[in-house]
Amino acid sequence: MTQTTGDIGALLRRVQVMEDKWQILELIAAYGPAVDSGAADATAALWSEDGEYDVDSGMLRGRAELRAMVGGAPHQGFITNGSAHLIGLPHIEVDGDRAVAIGHSQLVLKVPGTTADFRVARITANRWELVKADGRWQVERRVARLLDGRPEARELLGGVGTGSERS
Amino acid sequence: MTQTTGDIGALLRRVQVMEDKWQILELIAAYGPAVDSGAADATAALWSEDGEYDVDSGMLRGRAELRAMVGGAPHQGFITNGSAHLIGLPHIEVDGDRAVAIGHSQLVLKVPGTTADFRVARITANRWELVKADGRWQVERRVARLLDGRPEARELLGGVGTGSERS
Amino acid sequence: MTQTTGDIGALLRRVQVMEDKWQILELIAAYGPAVDSGAADATAALWSEDGEYDVDSGMLRGRAELRAMVGGAPHQGFITNGSAHLIGLPHIEVDGDRAVAIGHSQLVLKVPGTTADFRVARITANRWELVKADGRWQVERRVARLLDGRPEARELLGGVGTGSERS
Repeated sequence: MTQTTGDIGALLRRVQVMEDKWQILELIAAYGPAVDSGAADATAALWSEDGEYDVDSGMLRGRAELRAMVGGAPHQGFITNGSAHLIGLPHIEVDGDRAVAIGHSQLVLKVPGTTADFRVARITANRWELVKADGRWQVERRVARLLDGRPEARELLGGVGTGSERS
Repeated sequence: MTQTTGDIGALLRRVQVMEDKWQILELIAAYGPAVDSGAADATAALWSEDGEYDVDSGMLRGRAELRAMVGGAPHQGFITNGSAHLIGLPHIEVDGDRAVAIGHSQLVLKVPGTTADFRVARITANRWELVKADGRWQVERRVARLLDGRPEARELLGGVGTGSERS
Repeated sequence: MTQTTGDIGALLRRVQVMEDKWQILELIAAYGPAVDSGAADATAALWSEDGEYDVDSGMLRGRAELRAMVGGAPHQGFITNGSAHLIGLPHIEVDGDRAVAIGHSQLVLKVPGTTADFRVARITANRWELVKADGRWQVERRVARLLDGRPEARELLGGVGTGSERS
């Protein structure tokens, strides 16, 4: 192997890691628009077929339960009244075909019966466990806990920098 | 063409796409600081010369109207009283010299007459249509709609993943 | 030097700049989770040994003072009651081993004594001055000012696009 070929091999791996990060960033960035537009299929497709969304308000297992959540009365009530699922800047650590992203999210809702009064309904700690399969990143498990003082929400956020990659 | 030259050509295109994404991310990230600092020229320069900002509160056409918005009494009232135009993580799809970014934004204002009481004044759905000209990305059209339950705001957010690039 | 070697050298520099941006993005993305989980050491490690955090509520000089802030009664009161330090999308400009990131942040707190009533306690203008040492980016100085109408907060946000790199 020549020096040049070796250089290119190393460069290809560095480029691949950054492409992975972009795909993960966009996967996470797609969540808010998907749920707030009521796109049940697009939301479910962010997860793997049997992926989990473990949120304090209920455990969702697999794409069918994710679709049912988006189509269900509580969520439809939010979006037809006015809602924004804002996703904070995630901290992403990639380790081959697995990755962990940690960050905040925020749910802002219109106060029912008002024209344009909004309130912060939730601040949430998130841990996204992601896998790459067939060249595409998906959510294997998302754990989300309300930041209302409960220790487990703080513990979720404490996982930054404990993976194999250091940023 | 040798194998190595071919490899480099493919690699160059992958690197170029990521540079485009960074430039788009930074273009969008520049909006909030530009408007909240009252920088009329810097805000207008994010758009192309005849770019549009189609927001529910009014249609702005071209840089002169963008500059006028930033310099106008309502916006100056916001920023001298205390305001944050927070831009959510955008979902970006690049297709050559064109791109679409979709995401939320949030306007937080100080309640006039208070020292430090803040309220969420808006949650907004955004669709940014971007073009690259002379090596620089600019906003050709930004459509923004209040997330107060109106269907067209949800429809704007529903555009994720419908472009030519899939993430 | 052959054409190919020259190409690779230029490509390596472009890849390096993007790796730098990712590391800076992740450094900034790590701040919110670190403080909201109460991780005093992880928070302090984002700064250089004698780095500064110049915030309107007090000047912190060096890692020991940063650790003390996270461990102190006011901050512990926030996080055991429920808090989210949300970091907005930063605008990053890299110039070799130095960088400047400008953006908003937002502090949302649970209203004490309530189950899940949240309020926006702060909207803040941020300027992060970063340095790369031993291959790792760190915060040399972060200046943060409340967006309550004070001119100096707007001036902090006005620094976008004034560095050597244009996006």
